Amino acid sequence: MRIYGHPGSICTNRVLFALAEKGLEAELVRVDLATGEHRAAAHLARHPFGVIPVLEDDGGLLYESRAIMRYIADLAGPRLVPEATRARAEMEQWISVEQSYVAPPVSAILQQKFLAPARGLPIDLAAVDAARAQLATALDVLDRALANRPYLAGDTFSLADISLAPVFGMIHVLAEQAVVAPRQGVAAWWERVSSRPTWARVAAG
Amino acid sequence: MRIYGHPGSICTNRVLFALAEKGLEAELVRVDLATGEHRAAAHLARHPFGVIPVLEDDGGLLYESRAIMRYIADLAGPRLVPEATRARAEMEQWISVEQSYVAPPVSAILQQKFLAPARGLPIDLAAVDAARAQLATALDVLDRALANRPYLAGDTFSLADISLAPVFGMIHVLAEQAVVAPRQGVAAWWERVSSRPTWARVAAG
Repeated sequence: MRIYGHPGSICTNRVLFALAEKGLEAELVRVDLATGEHRAAAHLARHPFGVIPVLEDDGGLLYESRAIMRYIADLAGPRLVPEATRARAEMEQWISVEQSYVAPPVSAILQQKFLAPARGLPIDLAAVDAARAQLATALDVLDRALANRPYLAGDTFSLADISLAPVFGMIHVLAEQAVVAPRQGVAAWWERVSSRPTWARVAAG
Repeated sequence: MRIYGHPGSICTNRVLFALAEKGLEAELVRVDLATGEHRAAAHLARHPFGVIPVLEDDGGLLYESRAIMRYIADLAGPRLVPEATRARAEMEQWISVEQSYVAPPVSAILQQKFLAPARGLPIDLAAVDAARAQLATALDVLDRALANRPYLAGDTFSLADISLAPVFGMIHVLAEQAVVAPRQGVAAWWERVSSRPTWARVAAG
């Protein structure tokens, strides 16, 4: 298996974390975002929307990190999806919450704090503040859910935790961890997830 | 089962279409978006992000339409998920494409053409043009995928088609169907999906 991606990318790390949890190896083929390689014809042939990551294996090409993560979960190895219908539904709810409400404000802060300066553009402080407020609201919801359960889908670690972890990794890279610390359920969850040796390997790049 | 939602909502209709395909019935409890009922305490207790739909059944409350759709697929009735791992992965890729690339520009056009005037705000024509361009790009990708297969995941109708259908319904409500007609794969797919009696019942509200 090959992953076309970048070790600094939230979506690439979502896929690498799923692979690590399954005990699977893949070659990481680095797509150089700084030089625009993701917008070049060779990469557009792999991913028509010009983003990362893309999985290549015997079955062909697959993109969208949450789809790749589910495909990896289907392969041999530890189950990453709860058996019970209700727990599986909650796992899916939290994956969608991550995609709709947690990742977007973190990406917006990344855009302003890292990517705008790299392009010589001014930081839009109002946009940063708006994203911080959205992120705080989303983490309040997660915090209530995690007050009485160790993982998002309940007692067992699942794809919901895998999907959210690299977003939290980026919160720390962006030095935005002040939003995590006062929320005890979320902070304890992050401690549990980030102390997994599999995550440590992903975070080390 | 109860669905708290609204018959004009893309996300509510995604859930209602899944129910119809399973041959299941649910009571639709209308949340009055015009009066802000979705932001009131009673609804926030069901959905902390203050949007629709929410499913209520014996298992409790569940939100996020694509999670509810997957939960419904797990219930008794016709399978809406392919058996083969690869086809299932492609189904997930297209669900994520719908969520990331197709629904957002359609929602942006809805915002400008319907919701802004209802609030006495001017229409941002540049925002409409930008959304139309994004939608056209996304439909080009879908069109290439649908050139040689009847449904998004391959030969069988699946959750990917269910997820995308109400977005196409909204394209027509918004009188934006000019983006569909010239793309023959997409147009033929929409003809196949929208001619299902289950969709006709959903679209009739």
